[in-house]
Amino acid sequence: MEADAGMGETPLDDRGLAYGDGLFETVLVRDGRPQLWEAHLARLAHGCQVLRMPLPPRDALERPLTNPGEGLVVLKLLLTRGDGGRGYAPPEAPVPRLRWQLSPFVPDARRWTRGVRIRHCRLQLGIQPALAGLKHLNRLENVLARSEWSDTHTAEGLLCDSEDRLVEATCMNLFWQREGRLETPRLTRCGVAGTLRAALLECLPIAEVDATPAVLADAEAVWLGNSVQGIWPVTRLDGPGGDMLHRWSIQAVHRRLQATGHASLGYPTRFDD
Amino acid sequence: MEADAGMGETPLDDRGLAYGDGLFETVLVRDGRPQLWEAHLARLAHGCQVLRMPLPPRDALERPLTNPGEGLVVLKLLLTRGDGGRGYAPPEAPVPRLRWQLSPFVPDARRWTRGVRIRHCRLQLGIQPALAGLKHLNRLENVLARSEWSDTHTAEGLLCDSEDRLVEATCMNLFWQREGRLETPRLTRCGVAGTLRAALLECLPIAEVDATPAVLADAEAVWLGNSVQGIWPVTRLDGPGGDMLHRWSIQAVHRRLQATGHASLGYPTRFDD
Repeated sequence: MEADAGMGETPLDDRGLAYGDGLFETVLVRDGRPQLWEAHLARLAHGCQVLRMPLPPRDALERPLTNPGEGLVVLKLLLTRGDGGRGYAPPEAPVPRLRWQLSPFVPDARRWTRGVRIRHCRLQLGIQPALAGLKHLNRLENVLARSEWSDTHTAEGLLCDSEDRLVEATCMNLFWQREGRLETPRLTRCGVAGTLRAALLECLPIAEVDATPAVLADAEAVWLGNSVQGIWPVTRLDGPGGDMLHRWSIQAVHRRLQATGHASLGYPTRFDD
Repeated sequence: MEADAGMGETPLDDRGLAYGDGLFETVLVRDGRPQLWEAHLARLAHGCQVLRMPLPPRDALERPLTNPGEGLVVLKLLLTRGDGGRGYAPPEAPVPRLRWQLSPFVPDARRWTRGVRIRHCRLQLGIQPALAGLKHLNRLENVLARSEWSDTHTAEGLLCDSEDRLVEATCMNLFWQREGRLETPRLTRCGVAGTLRAALLECLPIAEVDATPAVLADAEAVWLGNSVQGIWPVTRLDGPGGDMLHRWSIQAVHRRLQATGHASLGYPTRFDD
């Protein structure tokens, strides 16, 4: 199956291209059914409200799902403020441009079962409460952070903000358990509030906290997760140079968070450890 | 004269559209000659180096200038990392995509002669040294800041960083004179290092400083400038709600900085005050 793209091209003065003035969603679609769809729509609607862009009607957002095919597909929705790239001032009546792409997807099941090695990134995220939580198109920080490693052993990189608080990984949210309590970084200053994170916060007593990386040394378990990949137990955390800082063995507690998260995505909820 | 666009459209998985992974330049072109061209090329080259993108050869960057027409035109160059928008990791061998657009331009001469009223913005820029100074495509902060006012009396908005240091205006650099000394914000944490600013720093003893907005209360003169609009004396500074904070009358010192800046752009250097 080839990637399938909706409405192909984008003119030069589209504000998404000119300024990153827009939003996106990447949605796991299983046998034609978008997973966590309400959460994706809610985040997109919230983003439109913050950026003061009209939200396209639901049927327009669901049009790519009319014939996505069997099995697993990732739908990428990309919504920009539309034309008007000749100055930062947004048009008074913007006409948003919706683009989409469907791509075949196979999750990495080994990462579910065996867990992943991750590292701290050197880059620190800028603090910008006005954009915090949104999945907007200004992602150069993520690109720079993801450029910090190229070895295939390292699955993800952890990001702190410029005041050294844990935020997220480059494309996943972060969770840990400390003294029996589940915690995840508060995302009021920067970071992307993932839809799987939202689902987990609804089902489980997970506290949103401000924490420095030091808390991970005390953590009994650490996970990364997003709505496309599912949940990865973290088995090793390295420093930004690749030097090992901590190791964790996979335990029942890892599997419990995975079971809850994976249930909302249709991914396996039991592992033969 | 209509706007003239180079190589029109951009595919959905262009990293400029997907992540704002790219750079741009807006260049004043006078009778076919790009003003401050070396400074624009230098900033673009520096941006490519920081983002680890190949810089297109000079003749490719100068192709839009082969027949730009008479009079004043603004050339917008938009350079993205090219295809590969399916993950933050940049391709190992990116093929940058260069787009351009030529648009007729008429500067606002009244703003040169009479000066402008500006205001403080509420939005504070995130601190991100890894991207500071670059004219990259992640400009949502500028868009949000520029959305803070819509009255036509207000020409620009001043931006501080999240630690309340002056940085710039939404699309111009900031200069002031205090106790006879010319100063401009240091741009090592955020902000765009303008080419006109670079030209002024070369010609004049302007100190790059960390300063809070309080310094403007003591300033004898305040200016905004960029390489397209030239230099505007600031005659009134408002708070974020539009309440007046300071006024300045235009004096010889204003004209002297304008003369230096405008000389590098071919704009008027003498004003009949």
